[in-house]
Amino acid sequence: MKRLKRMQELVFANDSKILFWVFDGIGGLPHRETGKTELETAKTPAMDAFARRASCGGLVPFGEGVTPGSGPGHLSLFGYPLDDFDLPRGVLEVLGAEGAYLNGEWVGRVDPRPGDLAMRGNFASLEERDGEVVVSDRRASQIATEESRRVCELLSREMQLENLDVYVFPGKEHRFALMLRGEGLSGGLTDSDPQKSGIPPKRVEALVPEASGAAAAVNLAIEKATSILKDEAQANTVLLRGIGCPPNIPTLAELYGIRCAAIATYPMYKGIARLLGMDVLEVGSMKHEDQVRTLEEHFEDYDFFYLHIKETDSVAHKGDFDAKVKIFEECDPHFGRATELDFDVIALTGDHCTPSVLADHSWHPIPTALWSKTVLDDDVEAFDERRVARGTLGRVASRDLMPLALAEAGRFNKFGA
Amino acid sequence: MKRLKRMQELVFANDSKILFWVFDGIGGLPHRETGKTELETAKTPAMDAFARRASCGGLVPFGEGVTPGSGPGHLSLFGYPLDDFDLPRGVLEVLGAEGAYLNGEWVGRVDPRPGDLAMRGNFASLEERDGEVVVSDRRASQIATEESRRVCELLSREMQLENLDVYVFPGKEHRFALMLRGEGLSGGLTDSDPQKSGIPPKRVEALVPEASGAAAAVNLAIEKATSILKDEAQANTVLLRGIGCPPNIPTLAELYGIRCAAIATYPMYKGIARLLGMDVLEVGSMKHEDQVRTLEEHFEDYDFFYLHIKETDSVAHKGDFDAKVKIFEECDPHFGRATELDFDVIALTGDHCTPSVLADHSWHPIPTALWSKTVLDDDVEAFDERRVARGTLGRVASRDLMPLALAEAGRFNKFGA
Repeated sequence: MKRLKRMQELVFANDSKILFWVFDGIGGLPHRETGKTELETAKTPAMDAFARRASCGGLVPFGEGVTPGSGPGHLSLFGYPLDDFDLPRGVLEVLGAEGAYLNGEWVGRVDPRPGDLAMRGNFASLEERDGEVVVSDRRASQIATEESRRVCELLSREMQLENLDVYVFPGKEHRFALMLRGEGLSGGLTDSDPQKSGIPPKRVEALVPEASGAAAAVNLAIEKATSILKDEAQANTVLLRGIGCPPNIPTLAELYGIRCAAIATYPMYKGIARLLGMDVLEVGSMKHEDQVRTLEEHFEDYDFFYLHIKETDSVAHKGDFDAKVKIFEECDPHFGRATELDFDVIALTGDHCTPSVLADHSWHPIPTALWSKTVLDDDVEAFDERRVARGTLGRVASRDLMPLALAEAGRFNKFGA
Repeated sequence: MKRLKRMQELVFANDSKILFWVFDGIGGLPHRETGKTELETAKTPAMDAFARRASCGGLVPFGEGVTPGSGPGHLSLFGYPLDDFDLPRGVLEVLGAEGAYLNGEWVGRVDPRPGDLAMRGNFASLEERDGEVVVSDRRASQIATEESRRVCELLSREMQLENLDVYVFPGKEHRFALMLRGEGLSGGLTDSDPQKSGIPPKRVEALVPEASGAAAAVNLAIEKATSILKDEAQANTVLLRGIGCPPNIPTLAELYGIRCAAIATYPMYKGIARLLGMDVLEVGSMKHEDQVRTLEEHFEDYDFFYLHIKETDSVAHKGDFDAKVKIFEECDPHFGRATELDFDVIALTGDHCTPSVLADHSWHPIPTALWSKTVLDDDVEAFDERRVARGTLGRVASRDLMPLALAEAGRFNKFGA
């Protein structure tokens, strides 16, 4: 926070333009047969040409060895210290939801605000065994998405909590999210989800004294939900986890005086962008080409653009090495087109690594190339994990990318005389 | 501490096995004639082959430019933040001693516990000059080790301090260590050793108010020792320094849930290992070959092995470049044998550098190669200071090696959603 404050004191506005091109889960590991990573395998002439004139290196999201989730990965990429800001899973779910029911009415998208208590939910099945009520199926037989949506609407219509608004966000199959809005709520709560079947759900407990009111409210919500759903065949209770409030986080505009736009197609990333005060631009499709078109159309309107490509992460999570290679190749000309705009600074980077061979996020440094009109370029000949590691950017913290970009954009005053 | 705590929250157990192969004082500097370092000169095919499949780089023990002693070097290598944990020299001496006298009886090895006050001692000579009692020889004419041992036993037999046990640890020549055990002791004390002769010994002062009782106890011990030794020809007083308590330090098992074993042959390193909760395995000789045999024999019993080679440091302290080269060459096949075990993660590293040309520890990054089944290897062709500096590991803090090793061992959960 001290450092963030110092940055804020040094920054000033000019007419420079910055692009963060973010491949979700960008970095990989060698294929067991070829010994080459996804980026080493992909033919990406535009990215390689860019790397040749950029300063290359690897970003470490949050301390060596730590694998970040999407929330921490993005917060650190935008320069926020993770010791001070946290994005609970429930908040991410709400940010990523298409909309919510309130008192049985569809109210569309609702962004969590400081003081709102958000949580991730499963519809689940309870049954009585030997006189004890236990969870018999944590996923309520993975009820169909449409069925789940009906249950969400029912829950929303019937559940009343004194002085609290209850938002119910339908998700896929048995998944949903819940958000309570009102006075006196706070995070620091345990899950009710016992994580396995055959035992009773847990009571939500306050981990800090000031959360005791919130714990009581969530336990009451669970009780009422179980009563409302008692006649459902499968989804006769809810299990809640990842309960927390959105961080009281300064926006990028407040910190750096930059007008920011996000060009993302997946809800959660749009949500994170809104949380940080970015305008989320309408792309109109899921096509990467349209993301670049959107960038071109709005080029004059903003100082900073965050362009997010989700699919590199999605296919890597499935362990599909070849598909990740293909997405890099498909995006390469679009990236090339973006670099033809009159940007002053461009960072080609990611929020974390998702090596296909691990089929999960990893702790490895995030391959990154930072270019500006004044950058100290290096002899890195191609954009991949091993080559960027030898570049002039070196191994730096993710949260240092934003100050570096602002510096390369000429937006910082000298510190001290 | 915050970070250590977060690591502790993220870690989980699996059946992976990790080896830290630690050459004490591993890194060197170029020989004045050949321009090559000890590692560049040594023929080490096994270490070079290992480097080729590893991720290479350099560890910085405690901030750039800082030369660590053995205590800080090891604490940081095992992931402890040196801002929070300190190993006073007196504690290291006690950890490294073969044993102690208590009330005139030999009680063997005694490990310091939190609350014990340990200090390093010199037997010294006092004389009266111009009516003032001054130190005439800080080393009591470097009395013989056997003679020193006799004085230790005498001191132990005669010295009584109310409510305190007094342990006296004989050392080489004029050196010994002292440890007080009882209630109300604490660190934060100045030395009594004036560091030069011709002036009086100093009184031990408390640097913090809570250490005033401890200061009084140490000053009383000095007074009693001087009285007991008044008829000795040379060793007629004691000078004390490096006074402190062992840190109240969580063990590696507590932090990471790993069962740890140390394979070290020198007492101080065994002592540090015990302090961190490791089992110290019996090697039965000082041979490096036997260290590897011990590793093989106990491979199934532990998750983490610390194998320590002392001699690289000892000969470098004497400025013996060629001897250090020879020790690397002698150890190379033993290291190769260790890598044939079914480890998941192996780090070839050190606690600090001891360049023979400096004949002392140094601040240079510690040459390190980290291998795992999923590591991002690099094109480093041989294990030496200059080549590892261009590897994918880069220049990282010593204390990051442990989290990286645990990550490569698949022992960390994701941070955040």
